[in-house]
Amino acid sequence: MPFNARTLALPATIPFVGPEALERRFGRPFLARLGANESVFGPSPLAVEAMSRAARDSWAYGDPEHHALREAIAARLGIRFEEVVVGEGIDGLFGLLAQVALEPGDRALTSLGAYPTFNYHVTGHGGTLDFVPYREDREDVDALIERMRATRPKLVYFANPDNPTGSWHEAEAVRRLMDAVPEGTLLVLDEAYSDLAPATALPSASEIRPNVLRFRTFSKAYGMAGVRVAFVFGAADAVAQFHKVRNHFGVSRMAQAGALAALGDETHLRDTVQRIARARGRLADIAAAAGLRSLPSATNFVAIDCGRDGAYACRVLEGVLGRQVFIRMPGVAPLDRMIRVTVGRDDELDRFAAALRASLAQADA
Amino acid sequence: MPFNARTLALPATIPFVGPEALERRFGRPFLARLGANESVFGPSPLAVEAMSRAARDSWAYGDPEHHALREAIAARLGIRFEEVVVGEGIDGLFGLLAQVALEPGDRALTSLGAYPTFNYHVTGHGGTLDFVPYREDREDVDALIERMRATRPKLVYFANPDNPTGSWHEAEAVRRLMDAVPEGTLLVLDEAYSDLAPATALPSASEIRPNVLRFRTFSKAYGMAGVRVAFVFGAADAVAQFHKVRNHFGVSRMAQAGALAALGDETHLRDTVQRIARARGRLADIAAAAGLRSLPSATNFVAIDCGRDGAYACRVLEGVLGRQVFIRMPGVAPLDRMIRVTVGRDDELDRFAAALRASLAQADA
Repeated sequence: MPFNARTLALPATIPFVGPEALERRFGRPFLARLGANESVFGPSPLAVEAMSRAARDSWAYGDPEHHALREAIAARLGIRFEEVVVGEGIDGLFGLLAQVALEPGDRALTSLGAYPTFNYHVTGHGGTLDFVPYREDREDVDALIERMRATRPKLVYFANPDNPTGSWHEAEAVRRLMDAVPEGTLLVLDEAYSDLAPATALPSASEIRPNVLRFRTFSKAYGMAGVRVAFVFGAADAVAQFHKVRNHFGVSRMAQAGALAALGDETHLRDTVQRIARARGRLADIAAAAGLRSLPSATNFVAIDCGRDGAYACRVLEGVLGRQVFIRMPGVAPLDRMIRVTVGRDDELDRFAAALRASLAQADA
Repeated sequence: MPFNARTLALPATIPFVGPEALERRFGRPFLARLGANESVFGPSPLAVEAMSRAARDSWAYGDPEHHALREAIAARLGIRFEEVVVGEGIDGLFGLLAQVALEPGDRALTSLGAYPTFNYHVTGHGGTLDFVPYREDREDVDALIERMRATRPKLVYFANPDNPTGSWHEAEAVRRLMDAVPEGTLLVLDEAYSDLAPATALPSASEIRPNVLRFRTFSKAYGMAGVRVAFVFGAADAVAQFHKVRNHFGVSRMAQAGALAALGDETHLRDTVQRIARARGRLADIAAAAGLRSLPSATNFVAIDCGRDGAYACRVLEGVLGRQVFIRMPGVAPLDRMIRVTVGRDDELDRFAAALRASLAQADA
């Protein structure tokens, strides 16, 4: 077939199977959707209204320069317009990043078990992956620094806060990593969950470095996962590389209008952050009541340590799925002894608690 | 900078400057938006309603397999589910196509002056371009066949109907091209305007070939340019290559819901096609009244031959833009003696007619 050798050799596997595919497989719907780190607390009503209005105007392409949205983001972060590029979710931006950064065979360094979609795009563009292990269920900043100094990869991936563990590092540690990036390397700082992190975890947005790109999204705290809008910020001449290859009309009119309205509703964001924090507390209580340890989280999900190996956690996961509650689990040892549960409303968490209890009893039997 | 040499060498130019950028430059809005081949007649009301509803549910990712939409498309076209892949507009799919097909330096063959965004993605993925000229303002099927036999490019681009000329070929000619594709070559059949073409121009959708990919969109006749949803269909093992690299969650929940609803509203589609045909007639009359020849069109726009060289057409274009009517023109000679005007409502076409008259007088002076 007339495709390139790299693509023909790629596996057909995908980073995440959607809950809809599982529903089709099981032949029945999930009654709680707690697996994809979405925000059940939803978008701002102002964003919903703006998107509905934009739906009627959607005969017209959205502004390919995302001018109003980039201005609003830049103003919010205290950075310059030229330092922001908007794209179709962080995943979409990762695809572009791999396209503009990698030569065939270039290395990307990440943590073993970290966000798989980054890896997917690296591989899809001909890069190779190198890993350092997590340390005490957190990304190991020192090990990443040591390895990147030794191997000088083209890309280094670091999520803060982290998915799938929910852990975070303080700004001081992140800054240490930023300072250590060698010439010829780009640090990919995935801050998808930054709106949910303690302020002390985030270096100031205005700490622009020539070889650090920071990615943020409207999918998590803003509750707009299904809308597909995110941004990358960093040095103007670095983010400008995205403009040379991006799908200029790719961010929909509704997405631009919704994100702009969402930025204007700080009350909704603050309320959502509080509701998520409260629900995280409930998830920790549910885990404790089941005799399990949960990990501290600065995200909208909680990793629960099932206390044994991956096969055991997998049985627990399947039990929970079978009880019509959608959750996920990390794919790689030793993180795969955990299940990962997104926050939900009280009734959804009750349903999860019951499913967990029953699934543990079944897995133990 | 830690980006690849190919990207660093790319120019900062983009295929299309948006009307919003021109409005910012001129400091005033366009009063008629007739330049981007959008459909002012808008999406189906059912699609608008479905998108508004989906806006509220947009805390959740859309189905990454686009199951319902692909089923509906496959049923409509009389092809199999596995033969359809949905993406973020044809432009987005062209980016993926270049990613999966091209090795560095691979050639793509197209017509000189044809859709520039295809070229943009080829270049962005390290491919090189080869061109055959238009012949009598239509793509030259025989010349494309001859050149692809001689040079065996990896990709051959052919739009039917064509943008920017609006011309079309009959199915017989397209089939001749399809039959001539050598092994190791993929024919990229851009059918963005197929819903506006005479039925005799389109080979049946079920004529699946191992090395032909056909691209269609909801941006044109369906009036959903700002929504970003399109699809590619072809042999299952060919379109499956897109699944290995695409942004799985990239098509928004609103886009999927809107496209599905739009497919269900055949009345709106039929009405829109009729309104577009009528407006095309008016545009031809406006051109004739101004003493200009217009090209026959099977699209939602009309190319008007200004009768002299590119510099003259450019002066006419600028005159029309200056009168707050957004239109575009082909970028390459000899097509650049034309201006390209998208259909609009009667009042918008009246405004264009007045702007054209004044601009011609000015350009002649």
